Amino acid sequence: MPNLTVKTLLLARHLLPISPSNTVLDDHGVVVENGRILAIDSNHSLLKKHPEAVQVDLRHHIVMPGLINAHGHLAMSLLRGLGEGHLIDTWLREVIWPLETRFVSPDFVAAGTRLAIAEMLSRGVTTASDMYYFPEVTAAIAAELGFRAQIAFPVIEQRNPYSNTADECIHRGVELNDAYRTAKTIHLAFGPHAAYTVPKDTLIRVFTLAAEIGIPIQMHIHETRQEVRNAHEKLGSSWIEYLDRYGMLVPELQAVHMTSLTPEEIQRVAERDVKVIHCPYSNLKLNSGRCPISDLYSAGITVALGTDGAASNNALDLLGEARLAALLANDGTENPSRVTSEQILESATLGGARALGLEAETGSIESGKAADLIAIDVDNPGLQPLFDAHAQLIHTAAANQVSHTWVEGKLLYENGSHIGLDVNEVVATARTWRDRLST
Amino acid sequence: MPNLTVKTLLLARHLLPISPSNTVLDDHGVVVENGRILAIDSNHSLLKKHPEAVQVDLRHHIVMPGLINAHGHLAMSLLRGLGEGHLIDTWLREVIWPLETRFVSPDFVAAGTRLAIAEMLSRGVTTASDMYYFPEVTAAIAAELGFRAQIAFPVIEQRNPYSNTADECIHRGVELNDAYRTAKTIHLAFGPHAAYTVPKDTLIRVFTLAAEIGIPIQMHIHETRQEVRNAHEKLGSSWIEYLDRYGMLVPELQAVHMTSLTPEEIQRVAERDVKVIHCPYSNLKLNSGRCPISDLYSAGITVALGTDGAASNNALDLLGEARLAALLANDGTENPSRVTSEQILESATLGGARALGLEAETGSIESGKAADLIAIDVDNPGLQPLFDAHAQLIHTAAANQVSHTWVEGKLLYENGSHIGLDVNEVVATARTWRDRLST
Repeated sequence: MPNLTVKTLLLARHLLPISPSNTVLDDHGVVVENGRILAIDSNHSLLKKHPEAVQVDLRHHIVMPGLINAHGHLAMSLLRGLGEGHLIDTWLREVIWPLETRFVSPDFVAAGTRLAIAEMLSRGVTTASDMYYFPEVTAAIAAELGFRAQIAFPVIEQRNPYSNTADECIHRGVELNDAYRTAKTIHLAFGPHAAYTVPKDTLIRVFTLAAEIGIPIQMHIHETRQEVRNAHEKLGSSWIEYLDRYGMLVPELQAVHMTSLTPEEIQRVAERDVKVIHCPYSNLKLNSGRCPISDLYSAGITVALGTDGAASNNALDLLGEARLAALLANDGTENPSRVTSEQILESATLGGARALGLEAETGSIESGKAADLIAIDVDNPGLQPLFDAHAQLIHTAAANQVSHTWVEGKLLYENGSHIGLDVNEVVATARTWRDRLST
Repeated sequence: MPNLTVKTLLLARHLLPISPSNTVLDDHGVVVENGRILAIDSNHSLLKKHPEAVQVDLRHHIVMPGLINAHGHLAMSLLRGLGEGHLIDTWLREVIWPLETRFVSPDFVAAGTRLAIAEMLSRGVTTASDMYYFPEVTAAIAAELGFRAQIAFPVIEQRNPYSNTADECIHRGVELNDAYRTAKTIHLAFGPHAAYTVPKDTLIRVFTLAAEIGIPIQMHIHETRQEVRNAHEKLGSSWIEYLDRYGMLVPELQAVHMTSLTPEEIQRVAERDVKVIHCPYSNLKLNSGRCPISDLYSAGITVALGTDGAASNNALDLLGEARLAALLANDGTENPSRVTSEQILESATLGGARALGLEAETGSIESGKAADLIAIDVDNPGLQPLFDAHAQLIHTAAANQVSHTWVEGKLLYENGSHIGLDVNEVVATARTWRDRLST
């Protein structure tokens, strides 16, 4: 199976371009060259127009844009499922943070990032956003593996294994952005943890610099009911209002979680064109609250999906995340058609690209975009009969059947095998870390 | 890889016997002969005690009892994902029932049952309960494939493609029970649809006969909020109270769905030892209501899990069902430790066996039980590191990694291939039905 550098035809059974929306093109394909999408056409026309091109037979497959995991902490895959059964506060304070203080290092981040990318490629994820310590390690590994990543570098006030001050974080992050300015698949962003952990002056500096440099900001906002309650006690307003007061509700803000929103807050977020990243599994598992995406869609807000870290998920399965988002969005409304499979799939792809400011590059199958593509083999008892491709992707275990994953036209996963990534070593290293973390 | 008729050792990395509960035995295995479990021991001891036995190396695997899908309509897999977006009432009346009236036949049931069993075997399900037209077809196919099934034969008043009267249904069901009395993997039950569709006199006859013959009764009870509201309008009491009034709340009753329960009803169900079968995906997708399993566990009620039919799920992925059950059970309680992964896994196995009255045969790895066993390959980036085997099974996409499925010691699925079932033909037949159903 070739990389998509030479002119190649992907001949699909069902092509889901995502843009235009709600579209399934049967017996259509894509022609790709130098890692870019040239055109979409019927398989018949493609074969007639490009007889010289390499052919990839995906005539038992759905072909669609790669999935975009818009929020995560990749290296936390090494902490998969640690501290089961805690609420978020004790989980962080008693389990996760003490382990991170003891163990996080460039080696830890390298091992965890490789593990996370290996898992995501096998589940059809072509782009992920990361927010973690040692972002230069994550960036280097994503670049080496050819994976598309937004590296939201951390901005942390307290001394930690990675940094001593927020100033140092900002300085190192800006340098990292310079280093990857021309990289095709590495995109930088500021990653201040949250409004309740990063002081106002630091946040102002972050937003000012981000606007100057022209990169986005990703931040946890309204993760838990408690966080929202605390804001009212501490500020006499919500965090949304607080951020707006200082001009921080901007289109470049990627607001992660956004549970417990009032109608007025939703209105304000819509007016400011803030992007929302919904992590339903983590929110539900940690019992943090519910993000009202049905109302966000109605207000015209861009909604992306994220798995959050594997420590609170415990998988990086974006189609599984989309399934849960679809189920929860209609829960209790007595109208299950309110949010559709098509909307949720758009959030899992183009919505993610828009949220990360990457919609010119990825998120849909359109001429000129990068060939970030996946194929799903539907020739399988769990995916037949197939009446509705969008619903089938959301409501069956379709991630199980991802057969091909390309990023920028480079084939990174095919039928159970990773290309350019030694999975045995990745798994063996994860096992070694398990033993160290368990002591 | 051998069938487990000759003496065979399954040497596992992690053995989850389910009984005793909350137990993970590292580097332990099972010795099996003639389709029965002889003993559990450390791999080391097993090798020493049984040097002559065939060895199956599962030292990168979790080995556990096969999953039990305690409620479904197998042949409905042919209607997978039809009528997306409807509430249950319009979905049944406008989409499903008209199609069934037109298309259901012995051929339809045969094709749908094969499809469902093929999917379930690949996801580690070794036992399923069915409730559908032409139960003799379903029974014959399950028997032919070596799959364990409870056939809850329908009892329907109205004329339909299968039967003309309830009397006829009962007569044919009782005959079917006689025919399979000595079959190892086929277990009969009465399957009256619901208290609101089957008249009282017919129900009384069903429960009387069931007690005489000694087989269980599976019935939809409290599937939707509307059903519960209707009962109060029609009877001045709930369906639970109505059933109790006529002596129908018995230990042999498998009550499916059980949403919108009051504390008094839960108490009564507990006292009568009625079994509850929870179908969270179908309930959430059709927005029917919530079954309060956390309270059911607290009351000591046996809880099993079911996928319901693929038309409202749309997968027959019992581990996925278990994951959703775990997430929903703790939703909104601010105490995510209330229901544990261990409890949910027990419901997915031994709870299912208890509900179906099959706990002497299956549901746990104990000496004397049938070798209904599955192996899950954890040597995979999505399942490493592994700190907590129970949580890993619930909270990752572990069904993806089912490597072996045995029923009564017979190997029916191994590493992506079905044994004794032509998957290409099953899938091709499903595609043919898609074309017929779409006209």
